[in-house]
Amino acid sequence: MPQGQPTTVPEDGLTTRQRRNRQLLIVHTGQMKGKSTAAFGMALRAWNQGWPIAVFQFVKSAKWRVGEENALSALGRLHEQTGEGAPVTWHKMGAGWSWIQRGPDEDHARNAQEGWAQIQRDLADARYRCYVLDEFTYPIKWGWIDVDDVVATLAARPEPQHVIITGRDAHPALIEAADLVVEMTKIKHPMDAGQKGQAGIEW
Amino acid sequence: MPQGQPTTVPEDGLTTRQRRNRQLLIVHTGQMKGKSTAAFGMALRAWNQGWPIAVFQFVKSAKWRVGEENALSALGRLHEQTGEGAPVTWHKMGAGWSWIQRGPDEDHARNAQEGWAQIQRDLADARYRCYVLDEFTYPIKWGWIDVDDVVATLAARPEPQHVIITGRDAHPALIEAADLVVEMTKIKHPMDAGQKGQAGIEW
Repeated sequence: MPQGQPTTVPEDGLTTRQRRNRQLLIVHTGQMKGKSTAAFGMALRAWNQGWPIAVFQFVKSAKWRVGEENALSALGRLHEQTGEGAPVTWHKMGAGWSWIQRGPDEDHARNAQEGWAQIQRDLADARYRCYVLDEFTYPIKWGWIDVDDVVATLAARPEPQHVIITGRDAHPALIEAADLVVEMTKIKHPMDAGQKGQAGIEW
Repeated sequence: MPQGQPTTVPEDGLTTRQRRNRQLLIVHTGQMKGKSTAAFGMALRAWNQGWPIAVFQFVKSAKWRVGEENALSALGRLHEQTGEGAPVTWHKMGAGWSWIQRGPDEDHARNAQEGWAQIQRDLADARYRCYVLDEFTYPIKWGWIDVDDVVATLAARPEPQHVIITGRDAHPALIEAADLVVEMTKIKHPMDAGQKGQAGIEW
């Protein structure tokens, strides 16, 4: 992680403090593990700051991210009981978004679009301060959600709302719009040695 | 993240289940953010599995990782109160290791060696099931801790103990010994645009 002084000081009319606290669009991409995991690690910091957190999971899987969901939801309950930290809201697309009354829809494109429409409403209302849009690169890649709409919505969002987007193959327009982009690169993975995923490690 | 079937099936005499649940040595390295953050995200999964977690932080900094420490410690207290999840133990080198009675020692090499000696004792006792050795690559790089001793100790550790090591410039012998290695690569960082680190994002 870069330490100390920034390498340049922009002429943007902002004080250091204003620039420091500017909201960020963060993208975790690349082929390797750690994209979502690091996003949920960032959510721990947001929780500690008292920033309301919303997670939107865009790709259905058998295991989801049960470990992270259970642990972050426990932190959200702790907030309700003690006031410590921040509330945590967790939405899953494949299970049927929680704000939609009917059961899961088999039209995945429409599901994804409904998720994005809710995110747009929440951003307009500045409802949360930390958003994890987990695997949101895929519905963009698959053409279900228009990247120009995403970029325009994020550019127009009220302060202060940090947004973290994860997934492989992030669209170039998304990378262009982002303030911080990390690529997770594989050097070695146990699946190369014939090992399958395991509880506690992969989910 | 790789999905589905491993690319090879080794002739190691293990069943798929045995191989699946094999303990892992994981290294998060590279120049970019997310190494430690992803390790703490993995700790969320360990917590959900009920695996006792120990964090050893090897590099002193003004901010440490207060967000992660507060959130994971809150999860540890929740475990004490409700039995949910798992206990969390957090050790910081620069503040004086918690098991050493005297104040912080200015001999950083000796501090690091004392931390490593405690990890060796804990591994021998199988005291935890998930270890985060945060920024442990540096005392190895600086010659304070012998990499061959680290590799031999980890190779001999009793099952089941997962170990996650973070930091830049991981020693080649450590990478060779690891089961899973992720490199975090910078594509874009707000410090390039003159923005300093901020609470909730960097710590």
